[in-house]
Amino acid sequence: MKSNSEKKLTDTGSDERQVQQVLAKYVRAADNLDGEAMKELFTKDGKVEVFYVNSGIAERLFVLNGPDEIANAISNLMAPHPAGGWSHHTTNDHIIEVNGDVADIDAQFIRFDTLGAIRPQGGWPAGTVGLMGSVTATEAGYYRPTLKKEDGIWKLATHRIFHDLPFVMSGQ
Amino acid sequence: MKSNSEKKLTDTGSDERQVQQVLAKYVRAADNLDGEAMKELFTKDGKVEVFYVNSGIAERLFVLNGPDEIANAISNLMAPHPAGGWSHHTTNDHIIEVNGDVADIDAQFIRFDTLGAIRPQGGWPAGTVGLMGSVTATEAGYYRPTLKKEDGIWKLATHRIFHDLPFVMSGQ
Amino acid sequence: MKSNSEKKLTDTGSDERQVQQVLAKYVRAADNLDGEAMKELFTKDGKVEVFYVNSGIAERLFVLNGPDEIANAISNLMAPHPAGGWSHHTTNDHIIEVNGDVADIDAQFIRFDTLGAIRPQGGWPAGTVGLMGSVTATEAGYYRPTLKKEDGIWKLATHRIFHDLPFVMSGQ
Repeated sequence: MKSNSEKKLTDTGSDERQVQQVLAKYVRAADNLDGEAMKELFTKDGKVEVFYVNSGIAERLFVLNGPDEIANAISNLMAPHPAGGWSHHTTNDHIIEVNGDVADIDAQFIRFDTLGAIRPQGGWPAGTVGLMGSVTATEAGYYRPTLKKEDGIWKLATHRIFHDLPFVMSGQ
Repeated sequence: MKSNSEKKLTDTGSDERQVQQVLAKYVRAADNLDGEAMKELFTKDGKVEVFYVNSGIAERLFVLNGPDEIANAISNLMAPHPAGGWSHHTTNDHIIEVNGDVADIDAQFIRFDTLGAIRPQGGWPAGTVGLMGSVTATEAGYYRPTLKKEDGIWKLATHRIFHDLPFVMSGQ
Repeated sequence: MKSNSEKKLTDTGSDERQVQQVLAKYVRAADNLDGEAMKELFTKDGKVEVFYVNSGIAERLFVLNGPDEIANAISNLMAPHPAGGWSHHTTNDHIIEVNGDVADIDAQFIRFDTLGAIRPQGGWPAGTVGLMGSVTATEAGYYRPTLKKEDGIWKLATHRIFHDLPFVMSGQ
């Protein structure tokens, strides 16, 4: 079983809902570290632009060009989940504008990382009951993608990620 | 006044929105520990299946069969909120498929627990201002319910809860 | 560039979506501490009522009457974001009822505060990589606004904020 994503649901509802569901599938692919699923969500010339917003000034950190580069980044360049760990990229408060075959979303995002507690040798102490582990918010910002209809299906053309937190490449 | 739920809103909008609102009412009933409100959201033979997902493998923890068993679990088996405390089960990034009188949702969920600070004897220290207390994320996972239309109203037929965190029954 | 809000998107979609987008713009204005943007979201006689809910009893803390009072509170009475800091008021699980030119929303809200780490003099330690800083949930509760159509545009008529956490005015 593919972790946490065995069910495939098709798009129904208005253009606005379909567009929002592309973003919902984007965060599923990100949390599954599933480059192939991610690739399907982008247009043939789709790209991802990543920014850090510092006191209101957006500086561009890097760009991923084309579905293959995007898929590779998701499948191979992201840190794997630790044992018992998972992530949830969540989005909120979507502002969506659809104009024919082009759509823009402005959404907030919060990333949570979860880590299940490990059962101690000899078992849990007497009286232990309930869910064991931690849920920690680790990233936040805005997603501002532009989508286009390709062969009748809404896809991400340019996905823009605006991080609240500064991004450090090793040793800077 | 019933805590935090005095307003009753009816369903309007598309099937997709109505279906999503059933889930919105589900989390309200869960946070209110209101078994009677919860019962109304399920079909006559509705059930809840609870899973823990461990490194991608879903293991079923338990099942609640029928609205009465579900209502009892919510009203009587959940830990009550502590004094000054509340919970928020929140859902995000819904992927919804409607096929006639059957609908599937795939949603992320995050649970937050809030706890208001207690005013010290003699009052707050000089200079204290603002909201006092804590908001802590405590649970996360996916809700993947199937809904059915019963007498023209969307209801939960099988609600599936997939927890990220392991669940410990006492003494295991 | 106005921090994090350079894009202006218009309303499309159903009444329910338009109503929800007013709330999405409300949280953007709150996070931008932008009183002028906030003012545009309220009717001419719009107001904000702020409550604290204590063990299920809502006590009203204060009221802001009219768009000018609301704009002033947002622009001048809120604590500014610290250097490298930002906020995200997020909303979830909207229950929306539209009746002609009046609409009610019941939504959960969680506020997150983010704070970017400061680069140490001499740079980050060797091996440092990734997003540096913190994301902290700081407020939670319910938004229960009533909206009205004014000149064909949905606006907040009475916005009601129900806080989980007690609010302390200085020295109480």
